[in-house]
This record gives sequence, structure tokens and C-alpha cells, in this order.
Amino acid sequence: MKVVALAGGVGGARLAHGLARCLPEGDLMVIVNTGDDFEHLGLAICPDLDTVCYTLAEIASPVTGWGRADESWKALETIARLGGPDWFRLGDRDLGWHLERTRRLQSGQPLSQVTRDFCQALGVAVDITPMSDDKVRTWVYTDVGELPFQEYFVRRRCEPRVQGFRFEGAEHSRPAPGIMEALGQADCVIICPSNPWVSVAPILAVPGLRAAAAEQRVVAVSPLIGGQAVKGPAAKMYTELGIDPSALAVARHYGDLLVGFVLDHVDAAQAPDVNALGVQSLVTDALMRDEADRQRLAQEVLDFAQTLAGSAIF
Amino acid sequence: MKVVALAGGVGGARLAHGLARCLPEGDLMVIVNTGDDFEHLGLAICPDLDTVCYTLAEIASPVTGWGRADESWKALETIARLGGPDWFRLGDRDLGWHLERTRRLQSGQPLSQVTRDFCQALGVAVDITPMSDDKVRTWVYTDVGELPFQEYFVRRRCEPRVQGFRFEGAEHSRPAPGIMEALGQADCVIICPSNPWVSVAPILAVPGLRAAAAEQRVVAVSPLIGGQAVKGPAAKMYTELGIDPSALAVARHYGDLLVGFVLDHVDAAQAPDVNALGVQSLVTDALMRDEADRQRLAQEVLDFAQTLAGSAIF
Repeated sequence: MKVVALAGGVGGARLAHGLARCLPEGDLMVIVNTGDDFEHLGLAICPDLDTVCYTLAEIASPVTGWGRADESWKALETIARLGGPDWFRLGDRDLGWHLERTRRLQSGQPLSQVTRDFCQALGVAVDITPMSDDKVRTWVYTDVGELPFQEYFVRRRCEPRVQGFRFEGAEHSRPAPGIMEALGQADCVIICPSNPWVSVAPILAVPGLRAAAAEQRVVAVSPLIGGQAVKGPAAKMYTELGIDPSALAVARHYGDLLVGFVLDHVDAAQAPDVNALGVQSLVTDALMRDEADRQRLAQEVLDFAQTLAGSAIF
Repeated sequence: MKVVALAGGVGGARLAHGLARCLPEGDLMVIVNTGDDFEHLGLAICPDLDTVCYTLAEIASPVTGWGRADESWKALETIARLGGPDWFRLGDRDLGWHLERTRRLQSGQPLSQVTRDFCQALGVAVDITPMSDDKVRTWVYTDVGELPFQEYFVRRRCEPRVQGFRFEGAEHSRPAPGIMEALGQADCVIICPSNPWVSVAPILAVPGLRAAAAEQRVVAVSPLIGGQAVKGPAAKMYTELGIDPSALAVARHYGDLLVGFVLDHVDAAQAPDVNALGVQSLVTDALMRDEADRQRLAQEVLDFAQTLAGSAIF
């Protein structure tokens, strides 16, 4: 069963990790958002891509979900002591990763190639790829003006009120090598429980990618449980945009892209409304508390995808 | 007594540290070689400047003489694991220093300003300055071709046979702000026990700097003791260039720039030949084993400078 997963940061990485444990090597591609990539201290930083790589390599911090386990902060302490910018938390091990990536990008290697090389060095067999080798940058329209994503997300801790989003460069970006082929051959596409506005939307904004996904069975897992995001500002964004934050709102958000939708028990009352959208629903325990949860949820999502009506390919 | 010191790396930094302990705040400027600066992993690295700053801030590694005490190597371990270049040893604390310097240089601050800001952040009151804010790069002619300095020095561990040197950019470089004024007001100029070929020569190659120094009493401290360099390839370079490595050879090297020369007891037999050059000599214990040695030698050099014939200014 060939699976393509679309993922943002922590939540997406965790389900992708579960999927990697359920599927044979070579049967999973994870397409990762690069809209929140940015340049900082001269380094090319790809927060979502790194979270997915670190999580699948099982070296991610179990505390934060992002960054590395067993991390130290000596370089950042020095920067702070010198009065430099220390608002973006860069650990020492993480810094080595960024320095080598930046060196390779500047020498002309595409991000997708660097990512594959790094995964190989870490022993990760899953095909993890940036959505594009072209530069796409998420901007957030807010009540204090338009902000680059990391400025909104990290430096201002998601405090400004959101009014909309823009994915700079998306219209001219191309899917990274292998993505269109993988989507064409996929038995199902899984939209991980990532932020629909700023993690999944940039991926779907790469020309051709949404249409290719729509050709396959697409199943999304709700990142909202009981009206709250497990992590990050997704619920706050829905509210600020005038939409009641709920699993149903997420299902509506993806619209006719979906054939299946996974929501938590606490949101079971919304399942009939999801079904009324023409989307089949699976109600389960959608919260991933630990690694066992990741694998259980991933297997349930895969089983659900197999049973979906019209899924003649299985 | 206003003093200007010319310094390269470890040996120069150690005497400069001693001088800083002997002189009141504001009476010492240390002009540091930047010929061995280079760009690595996108970072602007200034090895001699950093060794002097770290040594005077008393945070230098007591083991290596360069780099920082209490250093860790997590970033470099990551780079190595990813197959990146790990031949130049970059510690985690050191990396923060390079990252913030690179950020400031790219924002348009001159190196001399960044260096003063960093020294202030570390509580170093001595005026430490790069010889120039303009880019000067040392190249080494060798039997395996012309090599950038760090390629020769670190990557190839000084193994190629030296045939000569070139200081790229020196002819168009300008002394950093404050240097010509400090030299004009100096009671003496001390050439620290640094490599004459690749640490001191680049400083003297900055147009105007040698002539301004020559106007004052210039005293050099021999970096060669018993025909050996305490650290680094100075003796090997003399030999490969066909010159017997000795304190006398160093005195001859600086030629008529000098009025005084300091050499070790083991080289006492060379003192008459130094005097025959028209240079007064001081024979003492020129080896700096510990911090007490630094201060003792510095005080002896300052006292010697005071007694020099023709030194009407004292």
C-alpha cells in the first residue's frame, strides 16, 4: 500500500512516525511544508522539515516536539551574551545541521537532495521531501501588519490577531522531484493532523499538487480535538478568522479534496455533519500521547483508508 | 606609558595578556593579524583576533591556547555525521561568536567595531583591533602549490614545504580606525612573540603601518627559543626558506625597525650578534609557561623599553 502523507511540524511528524512503523520501507513518502522556512543568522532553517526528520530518526526532543533530544545551548548563550538575536531557539546539535545544510544549498544542491542525504546519514529509510525546492514563504496578515511566519509564530508567540495568509513564491514553485510520481502511484494520501492554514495550505498551494492529490483517496486527521489544537495556534486562527474551531470546520476546510476524515471521540457528535459533506468519518482516539499512540492511530487511519467506499484499488 | 602591541595568535595573545595586567586601562592597544581570517561554513572566522580576545577575556582554552575553555563540540559532531567539513575545529560557544560576528558584518558593521563591541560584552577594557577592516588574506607558496593559509595551517597541518607568502589585498588595505593615532602617540611598540612570516608580516604589510611603527621605539620578543618555536611552524618556515631558525634570524628579519630585542637565556650567545645589528638586547626567561610568566615577561619588556638609549620620551 503506497502512501503519501502531507505534514507540517510536530503533529504531522508524529503521525508520519506512526505511518513509518506500519508500512514497509519504500511505501511511504512524507511531503513537508517549507512555507515556514526562513533565513536566520545566515542559516537556512526549515523548521517543519527538521521536525519530521528528527522525529522519524527518533532524535527529536520528547519535551518540545521540535529540536533535538539531548540538546545543549552554548552557541545561543554566546549570541545572547554578545547582544545578538536569541529569540529563535537554536541548539548546538541543531546548529550543525543548519550549517551543513546551508553550505550544501549554497554549493548548489537542491533542498530535496540535501534532505535525502541527511535522512540517509541518520538511517531514516522513509522518503521525506520538502514540498518544493523553490522558495515559498508564508506571510501572516495580522492586526499589527503583515509578518513573516517565524516573526509571528516564534518572536511574537502567535499573539497578533490573524486576518489571512499569503504564500509568497508558491505560484511559481514546482513540486520537488518525485512528488508528482509518488502522488500518481499512491493508494492513499493522508493529511496529517497539522495546522490547515499554515502547514497544509502551503503544500496544497504548490501548483499541481492539490489536483494530483485529489485524484487519489485523501484522508485527513483532525488537528483539532474538542475545539482545541493539541499544539500551536490552529484553533486561535479559526476563531480570529470568524470560524468556530472544530473538527467539522477542518473537514469543511479541506472540502471536496477528502473522501475520509478522522476525528476524536470527544467530537463524535460532529461525525454526522462530516458525513453530510460527502466525507466518510472515523471516530477514534485521535490524541497521540506517546509512540504507541502514533502507531495505533496510523494503523487505524490506514485500515480506514482501505475500507473507504469507492476504493477499488485496494 | 602608551603601548601598542602587534600580535598574532597564541604567543602574541599571551604577551598581550601580560601587558594588559601591567598597564593602566586605556594605555594599551593590541593590533591583531587578520591575514589568516577566512570564510568557512558561511561564517567569518578570525582565528588570531579570537585568540587575543579570548585570552584577554580569560576564557581561552588553557589546553590548546586557541578556542574557548569549557568548550563542547555538538555542532561539529553533527556536521561530521552528515559528512560535512569538520577539519576546522569549531566549538559550540565559539560558533555563537562567529555567527553573531558574521551577522553584524553582513549588516554592514566594520570588523573593528564588532571586535570592540564583543570585547565590551566580555568586559575586556584593552583596545583590541584588527589591523584593518579591509580584507587581507595570507596565501602560502608551497611545494604542492599556493594554498590559502588555513588550508596550509590546519587542514594540511603545515606539512607542505614553504616557498614564500603573499598577503592578498594588503596593498589596498587601510589601517583600522584609531591605529595610526595610537601609533603616533605610542611610547613604544612591542612586537609580540608571534610568527614573523605569517602573523607579524601581514600587519606590517598594511600600507603606512610599518612606517608609523618605525617612528617609535620598537621592541620585538623572539618567538624562537633554542631554535624552536614555542608553538606553530615558524622554525620550520625559516628552515624551508633556507634560513637557520634562531632568535638572531628573527632580529635580522625585523631589521632596522627595531631598537630592542628580547631573547631567551638559552640563546644568550646570540646577543652580541643582535647588538651588532644596532639593536639593544635583553636576555631573560622568554618562555611563558603560565599567567605569572606572562606578566613577568611583559613587565621586563616594558622596563627594557624604558631604558633603551635614545628613548628621550620616557
